[in-house]
Amino acid sequence: MIKLLPLIALLFSLNAIAEPRATGDLGIVIEREDGNALIINTTEHKRLAKIEKLGDLSHASVVFSRDQRYAYVFGRDGGLTKIDMLKDAIDKRIIQAGNSIGGAISQDGKLIAVSNYTPGGVKVFSAETLELVADIPSDYGEGLRSKVVGLVDAPGQRFVFSLFDAGEIWMADFKNPKAPVIKKFPNIGKQPYDALMSPDGHYYIAGLFGEPGLALLDLWNTEAGVKHILPDYGKDDEKLPVYKMPHLEGWAVAGDYVFAPAIGQHKVLVIDKNTWELHDTIAVAGQPVFVMARPDARHVWVNFAFPDNHQVQIIDVKDLSLHKTLSPGKGVLHMEFTPRGEQVWVALRDDNQLVVYDTDTLQEITRLPANKPNGIFFSSRAHKIGL
Amino acid sequence: MIKLLPLIALLFSLNAIAEPRATGDLGIVIEREDGNALIINTTEHKRLAKIEKLGDLSHASVVFSRDQRYAYVFGRDGGLTKIDMLKDAIDKRIIQAGNSIGGAISQDGKLIAVSNYTPGGVKVFSAETLELVADIPSDYGEGLRSKVVGLVDAPGQRFVFSLFDAGEIWMADFKNPKAPVIKKFPNIGKQPYDALMSPDGHYYIAGLFGEPGLALLDLWNTEAGVKHILPDYGKDDEKLPVYKMPHLEGWAVAGDYVFAPAIGQHKVLVIDKNTWELHDTIAVAGQPVFVMARPDARHVWVNFAFPDNHQVQIIDVKDLSLHKTLSPGKGVLHMEFTPRGEQVWVALRDDNQLVVYDTDTLQEITRLPANKPNGIFFSSRAHKIGL
Repeated sequence: MIKLLPLIALLFSLNAIAEPRATGDLGIVIEREDGNALIINTTEHKRLAKIEKLGDLSHASVVFSRDQRYAYVFGRDGGLTKIDMLKDAIDKRIIQAGNSIGGAISQDGKLIAVSNYTPGGVKVFSAETLELVADIPSDYGEGLRSKVVGLVDAPGQRFVFSLFDAGEIWMADFKNPKAPVIKKFPNIGKQPYDALMSPDGHYYIAGLFGEPGLALLDLWNTEAGVKHILPDYGKDDEKLPVYKMPHLEGWAVAGDYVFAPAIGQHKVLVIDKNTWELHDTIAVAGQPVFVMARPDARHVWVNFAFPDNHQVQIIDVKDLSLHKTLSPGKGVLHMEFTPRGEQVWVALRDDNQLVVYDTDTLQEITRLPANKPNGIFFSSRAHKIGL
Repeated sequence: MIKLLPLIALLFSLNAIAEPRATGDLGIVIEREDGNALIINTTEHKRLAKIEKLGDLSHASVVFSRDQRYAYVFGRDGGLTKIDMLKDAIDKRIIQAGNSIGGAISQDGKLIAVSNYTPGGVKVFSAETLELVADIPSDYGEGLRSKVVGLVDAPGQRFVFSLFDAGEIWMADFKNPKAPVIKKFPNIGKQPYDALMSPDGHYYIAGLFGEPGLALLDLWNTEAGVKHILPDYGKDDEKLPVYKMPHLEGWAVAGDYVFAPAIGQHKVLVIDKNTWELHDTIAVAGQPVFVMARPDARHVWVNFAFPDNHQVQIIDVKDLSLHKTLSPGKGVLHMEFTPRGEQVWVALRDDNQLVVYDTDTLQEITRLPANKPNGIFFSSRAHKIGL
């Protein structure tokens, strides 16, 4: 009988995974201070697992493999961790740079790109093995190397990113991953500090820290070069102290409008997507940080910098009016909509909670514990362009 | 030793599922004549399983649970089959009507709605158990009952559908599934035969068989009622014999344009989404059936009715020109893009094949056998509105 024991032990360990887990309704919640990632289920509103020791997650972001099995977590300290959401475990982990600011996954799901401050540049890894595939130092002159920001994927197996110190946008075509073709757009404006891609991968827009306005690259017409738009955006006059630079990934495209946070002002800007001119401004409760469209684009949700970060406001896209103000709790840092938009998860850093709302009734559905959560990322992102 | 055998057998059966399967890159291919569904993997271009005995699949469609584990197959014969894509097996199957024409899954994933010809109406089932939740007979007068077509889900836990014989559109609010609230729009035009929802769930458009034009319902402004648009659409003059009525689910929204098949003509219509007027027409190789936008909206792919159904044409949305003509094989019946658009799968009924293309280079990647395939549905549909 004693010989049976290993067999029985094996049986039990197999039994633990006998009820298979699907991956379409999973997500990752970042616990900033602990350096943890929680795996959550959005159907059952459950925490499934806690993955520990992911390093400095103070500005973490996450992308997902195309089968939605693996989450790639980009840490502030150059850590890149591949989490297996079916085995509740770290699959692979590397430290790929000294100081890093986010990443992207290629259209085909085979490449992971990371944008680095130190040493400046973009490194590209195999999504399967995390082995280095390409290294693109952000050199822009004799002994000059730039921080890289605003890295996103683009259709046609490309990555697009911005060089903060150089004032350039680079587009890297990875159809041949061993020999990427890089196209550089110089003189796009002073100090691009972040960027976003339109959800269809058509437009890349970088925010400028060193001057007013934004830099716009039309990926359907790269020959036309980068255009300077919204020359009054971020202008110095009448501006309040900026408590937190808004995240450009948070911009929302809804119908013909792009909704964007005004820097340092208590306003959301409404930009006409056809002319790239300012259409309207909407007064809000504080300095907006994330400005996010519900997936059906009828509502836009806004959170705020300190001292207004206990509130969330909802804009009705139909008439650009303020629909409702919610007070979910202390330190609203991030929001993520379920893929079809019926619910939204909100991270409350200073209440150590996640709160889930019904986006139609605006009733609270549930709260879950999380230690200083600062980011929520659902696996449906695997199927989106430009994140 | 003999006592060990059941244990060992159990071990082997558990071992078969020991390597877990993710569900983000799965799909269902319908084999029409055999009444089978193939489970496929779009990353590895593999057939994983064949699920048999699903009844009459001559006009089958498929929706997916929000965790992407289950596929719901709507058969022509009123069959509704729930397939477990992790266990490669039928989870549940019912015959819910005598003659059926497709279905939808509610925004929260909890309800499955089916539109029926005989007896006419919509039946709504629990997505978990397939137990009947609500029955909505399509009565429109003393002893009059209509065929129901064009059933889609809408934001706010609603379903929208059209009554062919009654000339009505109905909108059913299922926030309380036991007591749905139905709003009826009468006199929307003669014989709505199919319908589509814009990808953001904003507009519902029904095609009219009994008169020219289309019926448009703005779901952001239902008080305004249904509008009659494109009064020349489907007009009788200069029309060729119609070999196959185009599918309205196939309409493509790309940028400011909606691309739609002209009925009976060798043309794709380009409709301005802001005015709902005809912007342009594009001459194509035959009578278009499916007109589908690549997920990044740069290209629109078109297939055709007999005798031109060996071809696929690709329209460049940038300048509304014909980009390329492909000849994949005999009987091109359906196409499905991978979620981020890098590849497309094409069903070749008369070649008993599926062919996969790189949508950028237009090179063929692989071919897989399938017996008379007539529909391809990827699990990423779980996260989309209005299918």
